[in-house]
Amino acid sequence: MRIVYFSTSEMGPVHQSGHYPDAMTEDDYLYDPAIVQRLDFSKCLVKFNPQISAAYPGPGMRVRPLKASDYDRGFVRLLGQLTDIGEISRDAFFRRFAEMKKCPNTYFVTVIEDTVTSNYASSIIGAATLVIEQKFIHGCAMRGRLEDVVVNDTYRGRQLGKLIVATIIMLAREFSCYKISLDCKDRLIPFYQSLGFALEPGNANSMTMRLPRSSL
Amino acid sequence: MRIVYFSTSEMGPVHQSGHYPDAMTEDDYLYDPAIVQRLDFSKCLVKFNPQISAAYPGPGMRVRPLKASDYDRGFVRLLGQLTDIGEISRDAFFRRFAEMKKCPNTYFVTVIEDTVTSNYASSIIGAATLVIEQKFIHGCAMRGRLEDVVVNDTYRGRQLGKLIVATIIMLAREFSCYKISLDCKDRLIPFYQSLGFALEPGNANSMTMRLPRSSL
Repeated sequence: MRIVYFSTSEMGPVHQSGHYPDAMTEDDYLYDPAIVQRLDFSKCLVKFNPQISAAYPGPGMRVRPLKASDYDRGFVRLLGQLTDIGEISRDAFFRRFAEMKKCPNTYFVTVIEDTVTSNYASSIIGAATLVIEQKFIHGCAMRGRLEDVVVNDTYRGRQLGKLIVATIIMLAREFSCYKISLDCKDRLIPFYQSLGFALEPGNANSMTMRLPRSSL
Repeated sequence: MRIVYFSTSEMGPVHQSGHYPDAMTEDDYLYDPAIVQRLDFSKCLVKFNPQISAAYPGPGMRVRPLKASDYDRGFVRLLGQLTDIGEISRDAFFRRFAEMKKCPNTYFVTVIEDTVTSNYASSIIGAATLVIEQKFIHGCAMRGRLEDVVVNDTYRGRQLGKLIVATIIMLAREFSCYKISLDCKDRLIPFYQSLGFALEPGNANSMTMRLPRSSL
């Protein structure tokens, strides 16, 4: 189905066309935005000065789930500050969004939006993902993983890196994960330690095997 | 719905009762068993002597996806050799099985069954899980994770630890994951290095935060 795509943003409509899989619309959230609003930051061990939270992230800022229309708000380009993003067409983005959404309570891609910028195409200025893994061990427990954390360079010094990570931690608590973990580059260890993550003695190794892409 | 539960195993029927969520039956596989059979171990970098594979794991052995009825074949007790399993009732097991199955192409819990043992209640003698995470980065790539690897102590020396890990690696290749990783205790690093996993310089840290279970 090919439909007209437009933004309802206050920044003015952006007319685009795109294929939406299933009954997806541009206003689709990846998960219920009410969850972010109700996170109780009074229980958050990460400390802010001045105090901010996911519900009150500061003037002109909003923390919310990824929306399908964030493709046009610079979400993919923001990821490019993190790593190689490769080619991500509009259709590929929508397909991946829809595939994530088909997995109940699994993907919590969360963004920070600058709601007052004149630069609509770069208004997603922070992002991080909680992925929840269901297990049998520990009484059918759930484990959280923090993935793909990035904040736009030009927004440094506003506690937004801390804020997006704290939001993911509080989401993991909200869904009763028994732990949350991340794979961490050496240079980022102090940052994550300051937020409460630890290198557990004897069990802090992440091992990797790169796989051939043409193996099929 | 409460229905009669029985095993069709050659070891004789085991009559149990249990609640099956949705239309689940005891013969339900977590994923298509044909996938395991078609894995091409001639492309596998893990070497075996004598040669075995997921399709030909040796006399009296079978590698296959987890089945709902594996609750009665000792799957949960086997996990107890790995870590604290807590309380896992039959109903909780079935619910978790059904929840995993609702996530398309995500959970590949794979087991080794001893098909000739007289000890039906302990016939699941090895297990490991591939969890696939869908990403936006790297051109909407997929990342594999190796989780919860365990082989029954009494079956050592039969290459079954290598076999179950190699099966998970080949599954990750089958689903075009660009990498597979695992969190690894210090003492297990040599084993996983021998299978092709590496500690990547500057990026081999797994950081963890334990979360309060009563946070809601």
